[in-house]
Amino acid sequence: MSVETIIKEMAVKARKASIHMARLTAGEKNRVLSTIAEQLEKNAAHLQAENLKDLDRARDMGLSDAMIDRLTLSDKVIASMIQGLSDVVKLDDPVGAITGTWTRPNGLQISRMRIPLGVIGMIYESRPNVTIDAAGLCLKAGNAIILRGGSEALHSNQALAAVIADALKICGLPEYAAQVVPMRDREAVNFLLKQDECIDLIIPRGGESLIRAVVENSKIPVLKHYKGVCHVFVDQGASHDMAENICMNAKVQRPGVCNAMETLLVHEAEAQSFLPKIAATFKKAGVELRGCEKTRAIVPEAHVAVDEDWAAEYLDLILSVKVVASMDDAMDHISTYSSNHTESIITNDYGRARRFVREVDSSAVMVNASTRFNDGGELGLGAEIGISTSKLHAFGPMGLEELTTTKFVVLGDGQVRA
Amino acid sequence: MSVETIIKEMAVKARKASIHMARLTAGEKNRVLSTIAEQLEKNAAHLQAENLKDLDRARDMGLSDAMIDRLTLSDKVIASMIQGLSDVVKLDDPVGAITGTWTRPNGLQISRMRIPLGVIGMIYESRPNVTIDAAGLCLKAGNAIILRGGSEALHSNQALAAVIADALKICGLPEYAAQVVPMRDREAVNFLLKQDECIDLIIPRGGESLIRAVVENSKIPVLKHYKGVCHVFVDQGASHDMAENICMNAKVQRPGVCNAMETLLVHEAEAQSFLPKIAATFKKAGVELRGCEKTRAIVPEAHVAVDEDWAAEYLDLILSVKVVASMDDAMDHISTYSSNHTESIITNDYGRARRFVREVDSSAVMVNASTRFNDGGELGLGAEIGISTSKLHAFGPMGLEELTTTKFVVLGDGQVRA
Repeated sequence: MSVETIIKEMAVKARKASIHMARLTAGEKNRVLSTIAEQLEKNAAHLQAENLKDLDRARDMGLSDAMIDRLTLSDKVIASMIQGLSDVVKLDDPVGAITGTWTRPNGLQISRMRIPLGVIGMIYESRPNVTIDAAGLCLKAGNAIILRGGSEALHSNQALAAVIADALKICGLPEYAAQVVPMRDREAVNFLLKQDECIDLIIPRGGESLIRAVVENSKIPVLKHYKGVCHVFVDQGASHDMAENICMNAKVQRPGVCNAMETLLVHEAEAQSFLPKIAATFKKAGVELRGCEKTRAIVPEAHVAVDEDWAAEYLDLILSVKVVASMDDAMDHISTYSSNHTESIITNDYGRARRFVREVDSSAVMVNASTRFNDGGELGLGAEIGISTSKLHAFGPMGLEELTTTKFVVLGDGQVRA
Repeated sequence: MSVETIIKEMAVKARKASIHMARLTAGEKNRVLSTIAEQLEKNAAHLQAENLKDLDRARDMGLSDAMIDRLTLSDKVIASMIQGLSDVVKLDDPVGAITGTWTRPNGLQISRMRIPLGVIGMIYESRPNVTIDAAGLCLKAGNAIILRGGSEALHSNQALAAVIADALKICGLPEYAAQVVPMRDREAVNFLLKQDECIDLIIPRGGESLIRAVVENSKIPVLKHYKGVCHVFVDQGASHDMAENICMNAKVQRPGVCNAMETLLVHEAEAQSFLPKIAATFKKAGVELRGCEKTRAIVPEAHVAVDEDWAAEYLDLILSVKVVASMDDAMDHISTYSSNHTESIITNDYGRARRFVREVDSSAVMVNASTRFNDGGELGLGAEIGISTSKLHAFGPMGLEELTTTKFVVLGDGQVRA
């Protein structure tokens, strides 16, 4: 069978399975998740043996230690997958909820009922645990899922897929509700992206080039973020202690993630006193600063920030710093360079806090809080399958609810249209 | 300037205007809509003169009378555009609404705030009044819009665009918030569909081939329906009077629209008594029946339904009829052939009504009501910009709310992530 045929058949089977999954109760879906967790525990040794094949291949190919670390299904990673499933079991099932009801003058009762999206296509290049995390969330929301992980994790992902399929069978459910693309061929992704009759939504996770390739080739709507160029703006009159604390957290706590701060904007009224302090703190933490002219006049050891710096997602201990004349200047800078991911204002001014919240066009807009909180778990969604800076039904972290939509339910007594 | 450059510049200007529009109050947006209505009234003669150019060209090209009728900006059509705008003025502004608030254990207060989508691209081939209707809804929801109407309506649409631009200028707002693509070139559409950095959502309205071409070429998410193959299922024990009344309304009241019934499914327990009656009624109304074998055994004058009939959107006084052994058979038929648009069950059975509502995967699922009610106005959304059978934030009619999304607002007191 050609790659195209295999992918097409997977999509058709997923669509069929999705109809079954959409009808399950929360209890039935929780049982699937618990069974996957049990099977993971039972099959840990086999999973790690399969994982070893990927690791051997990765070492032969000369992948970096960091890559190999991410690829490893350690006991700890398996335990965290099991914990993740048990966390999702505890979340409320969004499916079947009535999100609104009203009655028309002719007596028709109209409701919106929450339903699964249907079939989700997940394309990722990161750790194999995404296979379990994403499948758990999608199945709990009543969807079917097709997973395409990184080619370096193929053995691990196929072993994980077999565990999920077994769990589905044990529960008497269609095993095709969760499938992993079984080959490394690059063209498989492009065929997947053409199955718009069977797949409702594509969620890519990975580097910007992967995501751009997905958007370029997909006939199916894509929810994604390319990158996170997150800003913190220290407003006139802000508490310097709070600002320092938040800036350190936003930049240093985990610099390699999309909700880390990449650019610091400082109001000129605070720059003279705030910048030397925060520069010293950043220096101790090993952060390289790249500043505008005004910044460098105050902090001479900062490097020169060039135009590319304002749009850069460093994912590293590097920070661009700009002194601005007003919140309007800060918001102009943000609207020019931001990736619509996360921006925070540190302020004590009621009016400006309100304006910043209203006017900044990002998936999470914060007042006096670290950008690092833009995360499904931290925002209280329970878990997330990714973060969207696309503006559709999800803008920001996507939890269970973002894996559903609503249909209209119309209850009548024989009404006809006049 | 090349067509590509023109389209790109339109998209960039729309993006810029959208930032401005997103910040307007309901009062400011209502003033724009009222001003468009005033300008339509003032400029009616000019609009009709421009429309005449399109009509002359259409006659030269030999377009059908029906097409020419749809193209005509009669006094009545202009009055209905003005009325439509005034209806939208009366609708609540969705923007700024807080759709949920909760507090995290660390004291962070999280909210979801409704915001405009940004820039909507509307591609349509129908009447020029869509230009005003769509612009009114998009602007009221705080969006910018780029409109690409049918090439046969270019003069009319450009004149309407000038009216909107004037109204925006009178209100001190960016005129690029609503723009009409100013040329007939087909490639303009394809360039528009590539502006994913500036356009958030594409809504195509028109024939299936237009919509398929849009989906094929778009890098931007598309909300659409290809067609409406709507079913009515007459269940065992249903009231025959109610069933007849609803079936007639669903088929005959306006057969050329997407929410008209195309297939009638009848439970075999009712077929013998119900089908002869409804066949006689349909005959009087000029409806051609195409039936399965069991149908033709009861109604011999029905034509033979072939496989294509079950998937056909006739948009005409033709109806396919099938006798089914159970509701499960009916639901199987629906899940095989339906376009996920609208399905209705006529029943008096509580359990089956509940199952039908839950299990049928269509944008509107109805009990004892005509499929013709799947319409934004009829469902109480106030107005609609189209009907989606894509499953994203909108599944079904798209009103003002479906032209928005939400962002997360995070209010803290200095919280950092542990």
